[in-house]
Amino acid sequence: MSSEASATVQTQLLIQASVSGAMKVESRDGDHVGSVHAFMVHKGSGRVTHAVLSLGGFLGMGKSFYPLPFALLQFDAVRDLYVVTIDRRLLEGGPSWANNAPGFDQAYADRVASYYGVGSENLANG
Amino acid sequence: MSSEASATVQTQLLIQASVSGAMKVESRDGDHVGSVHAFMVHKGSGRVTHAVLSLGGFLGMGKSFYPLPFALLQFDAVRDLYVVTIDRRLLEGGPSWANNAPGFDQAYADRVASYYGVGSENLANG
Repeated sequence: MSSEASATVQTQLLIQASVSGAMKVESRDGDHVGSVHAFMVHKGSGRVTHAVLSLGGFLGMGKSFYPLPFALLQFDAVRDLYVVTIDRRLLEGGPSWANNAPGFDQAYADRVASYYGVGSENLANG
Repeated sequence: MSSEASATVQTQLLIQASVSGAMKVESRDGDHVGSVHAFMVHKGSGRVTHAVLSLGGFLGMGKSFYPLPFALLQFDAVRDLYVVTIDRRLLEGGPSWANNAPGFDQAYADRVASYYGVGSENLANG
């Protein structure tokens, strides 16, 4: 994409959509990790790019939100929950926020992808 | 799928995820249609199957919610809104709810697909 084309697209391509009921997230060993607070949805393609996990009450602190590339979650349809193979300590060191959600733009998506070692994707391609 | 297999899967495969900011929806002629209230997300694939439109204040009645197959919305990245080619009267006659959201299961998804003349999809396949 030329710099001119990227300059004209100021629109935020991802939108946060909040899950009302708590969707549980467990580790592979069956330990409680947290819950899905929201999905980041690509407005154009309608694809969920990230799940925003809520890891609450850790060490007495308030809730924090951790965006995780959706490909790293596996849905268990029988138990109606997600399983992640990622270590909780790795999650806790990852990109997150407590009160003010970041602008979830290309740069932030790249940062999340880089942290979790997954390929970064060009949001402009859908 | 055998009837035994379908009997074991009681899990709701779609989950509603609410959009906080109002995403506008317009007709092709640029008329205001409503806004995107929520997305129905397929838990397994992370695909948005439907946008739930809010068509508020029509004839003095309260807000109602109209699920539309996502494929019928076109995202305008420059103006940051969705365009639908569907006539507003067709929408208003479609499946909808005001207070109590239906269980958005295969039967309901089939009903929506049938109303809008799009192919019905097997949710169990993702």
